[in-house]
Amino acid sequence: MPKFPPAIQELADKFNRFPGIGAKTAERFVFYLLGQPRQDLEKISSLIATLKDKVTLCSVCFNFSDQDPCPICSDAARNRSVICVIAKPQDLAVIENTGEYSGLYHVLGGNLNAIKGIVPEKIRIKELIRRVAEDGGLKEIIIATNHDLEGETTALYLLKTLKPSRLKITRLARGLPMGSDLEYADEITVSSALKERKEIR
Amino acid sequence: MPKFPPAIQELADKFNRFPGIGAKTAERFVFYLLGQPRQDLEKISSLIATLKDKVTLCSVCFNFSDQDPCPICSDAARNRSVICVIAKPQDLAVIENTGEYSGLYHVLGGNLNAIKGIVPEKIRIKELIRRVAEDGGLKEIIIATNHDLEGETTALYLLKTLKPSRLKITRLARGLPMGSDLEYADEITVSSALKERKEIR
Repeated sequence: MPKFPPAIQELADKFNRFPGIGAKTAERFVFYLLGQPRQDLEKISSLIATLKDKVTLCSVCFNFSDQDPCPICSDAARNRSVICVIAKPQDLAVIENTGEYSGLYHVLGGNLNAIKGIVPEKIRIKELIRRVAEDGGLKEIIIATNHDLEGETTALYLLKTLKPSRLKITRLARGLPMGSDLEYADEITVSSALKERKEIR
Repeated sequence: MPKFPPAIQELADKFNRFPGIGAKTAERFVFYLLGQPRQDLEKISSLIATLKDKVTLCSVCFNFSDQDPCPICSDAARNRSVICVIAKPQDLAVIENTGEYSGLYHVLGGNLNAIKGIVPEKIRIKELIRRVAEDGGLKEIIIATNHDLEGETTALYLLKTLKPSRLKITRLARGLPMGSDLEYADEITVSSALKERKEIR
């Protein structure tokens, strides 16, 4: 006998494919939805159905947006001499939230990963090269890919590829995160924090 | 400036209300959906929209079902002399999966919780009393609510309420779970396992 009616099981199977969601949590989602008012389910349903129509990729920076170019690329008040290169759109939100950055972005759409077959042609590196070549006012590229194997590989590849451009190329600082305890920090982080220590008087 | 286009933000806000899902995970869900084929989104959307039409409550045991009475209540091969009382439909699947139980069920729809205002009238206790009163062939009630404060409170209340019926009333055994390590077991579990120890020769 099947555990649940087909309508529950089918939806749970779909939720099960969501990132990080196991079979039990997927079932919990369906039971949660069963407890919600009908109009809420209709709202969620229509948001999902129209998602891809309402969200497009900005043809300049490749961030998800509801207009093209996106509000950031078309904002005259932004500093157009610097591009921050990030792996995915979520990273953009994190940098925007700091309020410390007013330049432009370039979303690669992933990091290089030889094992997963993500070669340079699969992420938006040539689009970045084109932006760099076409934009004479550009002064700096900030490489903000993750500080892990894939992110570092991507950063190294970008550094090599962008070398002929004579632009200033920077990377987000490595060090101890705010609120961290030295005792539990890993050796690479502490070693980076030591190497890049800052004079304070 | 908003972090994401409204279509992304609105859907992320909905996922944020799913049980156990924070703002970051909710955003990841939306970005996951943006990477899926259009027909998959349409399928998920229609499953959510029609969920409440396709799933009803069984009027006998109050389990979610696509027919009324549900396949378990209408199955002539089940043992109709025993009812297993559970708090929520998910618990039914767990007991069915053991393959050890062939009786009927009664889904309470929650446990008693004075702090949250869940009084006996808010869960399906009177429906259980009615089933007990109307069904002369009934011999046993298994109370399978959780072994925590709310579950124990509900079990005690049911025990008191069902006392006049002269039915056999049982409770799932307490003890050490399979694969557990005595060293890390809590005192109440070990104390229960000691009290309810079983002679093996």
